[in-house]
Amino acid sequence: MFACTGYAATAADARLAPFSFTRRDVRPDDVQIEILYCGVCHSDLHQARNEWHNTVYPCVPGHEIVGRVVETGGNVTRFRAGDLVGVGCLVDSCRECRNCRDGLEQYCEVGFVGTYNGRDRQDGSITYGGYSSAVVVDQSFVLKVPGNLDPAAVAPLLCAGITTYSPLRHWKVGPGQRVGIVGLGGLGHMGVKFARAFGAEVVLFTTSASKVEDGLRLGAHEVVLSRDADAMAREAGRFDFILDAVAADHDINAYLNLLKRDGTLVQVGAPEEKLPIAAFSLILKRRSFAGSLIGGIPETQEMLDFCGTHGITADIEMIRMDEIEDAYARMLRSDVKYRFVIDMATLQPTAG
Amino acid sequence: MFACTGYAATAADARLAPFSFTRRDVRPDDVQIEILYCGVCHSDLHQARNEWHNTVYPCVPGHEIVGRVVETGGNVTRFRAGDLVGVGCLVDSCRECRNCRDGLEQYCEVGFVGTYNGRDRQDGSITYGGYSSAVVVDQSFVLKVPGNLDPAAVAPLLCAGITTYSPLRHWKVGPGQRVGIVGLGGLGHMGVKFARAFGAEVVLFTTSASKVEDGLRLGAHEVVLSRDADAMAREAGRFDFILDAVAADHDINAYLNLLKRDGTLVQVGAPEEKLPIAAFSLILKRRSFAGSLIGGIPETQEMLDFCGTHGITADIEMIRMDEIEDAYARMLRSDVKYRFVIDMATLQPTAG
Repeated sequence: MFACTGYAATAADARLAPFSFTRRDVRPDDVQIEILYCGVCHSDLHQARNEWHNTVYPCVPGHEIVGRVVETGGNVTRFRAGDLVGVGCLVDSCRECRNCRDGLEQYCEVGFVGTYNGRDRQDGSITYGGYSSAVVVDQSFVLKVPGNLDPAAVAPLLCAGITTYSPLRHWKVGPGQRVGIVGLGGLGHMGVKFARAFGAEVVLFTTSASKVEDGLRLGAHEVVLSRDADAMAREAGRFDFILDAVAADHDINAYLNLLKRDGTLVQVGAPEEKLPIAAFSLILKRRSFAGSLIGGIPETQEMLDFCGTHGITADIEMIRMDEIEDAYARMLRSDVKYRFVIDMATLQPTAG
Repeated sequence: MFACTGYAATAADARLAPFSFTRRDVRPDDVQIEILYCGVCHSDLHQARNEWHNTVYPCVPGHEIVGRVVETGGNVTRFRAGDLVGVGCLVDSCRECRNCRDGLEQYCEVGFVGTYNGRDRQDGSITYGGYSSAVVVDQSFVLKVPGNLDPAAVAPLLCAGITTYSPLRHWKVGPGQRVGIVGLGGLGHMGVKFARAFGAEVVLFTTSASKVEDGLRLGAHEVVLSRDADAMAREAGRFDFILDAVAADHDINAYLNLLKRDGTLVQVGAPEEKLPIAAFSLILKRRSFAGSLIGGIPETQEMLDFCGTHGITADIEMIRMDEIEDAYARMLRSDVKYRFVIDMATLQPTAG
């Protein structure tokens, strides 16, 4: 065991605060990573505040981790000390079910082990995430980070990046297609970048006139203000694929109606309330409404490699660890362009 | 013009009654058909009673038509007098849009012309359906009926048949797949027959214990009573594909949860109210919720040919034309095994 420092929530209504704890020494297949940067995902906030009613306290959030390998177990051959690596939303899975065998560990039938608030499959301990000085992860769930990218801006790729990359790939978005991205936040801004990189004609839908210019800068060919009923009417039936990254309540049917025959709308933001879907809207054009969850380890590596080749990273705002509560408050107001990343050098050892 | 007899609704609250009218003489591309049998679809009732708020009266329903060619226009080469033919839900479309060019006239971007309550593209008249002695239809929308099948039992294939055949084909249902059919009515019983014929492992879901035996007889390998929570729980995550043929309000999420990763549930029954969909249910297994509308003309012919080869028809109850209101009443109670078909020989010429 070795000593770590981090930030944890100790209760649903407690502010995140400095937290001292220990992590396991490397097992034969483990990689010990010194964390350099950790992205701030809305899930961190949900979990810290027990909004999913399953949080085990203390809770150390963070699943967009970039760091350097400092130690490796005896079986580890793919990594060595000094390597720049990433860890995303999952740190283990059953590895035996159909989905794991297909490299889709995020759909593990036994349930994947989350990077935080998960339960270690060997010792049953609760996992602590990336708001910390170090992390120990099985090599099978560690990603190689391309050396040519800003490592801080790589961190959000581990969740926001793969969550948008995976469905765009799965549904084969590419040249000749008109693709909509709904919402310009952490996920949406990556969706715009990837859809553009894949060769599609990209239209961003946003409620904010203030985001039009940024949408175009990030790669959208057009930006439609979704509160403009006339503009929405003009887009009816014109889209092959729509990626909806909005977790807040909104009218999904308005977007389903933008799909061509056989078009698909994929929800990656997860509204809490059930979404009322007009069956006729699907039936009359053989449309599909689907969901997608992050991505598996092989595809996450593929995404990182693609980003290295194409020079793609997230647009980030760097914060200090002790600014996390302010960052959460701003995130709740959608006041971030487009992902907060914690500089872990600002995490001071505590008296603990 | 020539004289026809039929049954029509003259108002939303009027019972269907004998009706005399005229039909056009054949245009160069037309086929004139003496109607032998017409299936009774729930849409007939919706339209007769103006439940879709767009009915033009008088309304002659009926779009599951089997009859014999009695006359053909000068351009007609594919049909001749005496041929056994069918007409389904559509009698024309724009023929120029992407969907029409793809043989998917049911998704015509201009809008297909319905067999009843449609508007003829040449003279603007309102179309009258199959509850009548004859019909005149452009040859491009007339189907050949295999000679080895009971023509009365073929009639329901033109709507109930193709509505289930098309999605099972589009989503490539076949051997090695576990497929659910929800609801054993006019559509559902055809879904069971087709899914079985395509080589899938077929599970029927029904609320009625009285339908278990029939479900097995029709081809289901298993029947699950959907009100049995334990039985439903045992089926969670086990299905590649589910065809939901229930138009009444029901809990779609209970069926979405039965899908494997990447499974699809296709709604062909069309509930009036919006369906509340739990986004997490889709996201956590990359499931799809889709819709499908009848089928195009090429696929309808393919389906009829398939039925001829495999000896597939609907299970029907024959009625007299003057029993139509009783049939509607029984249909509303789901008291039909599994489609009413009107014997048009019982349609007497009226004084009109």
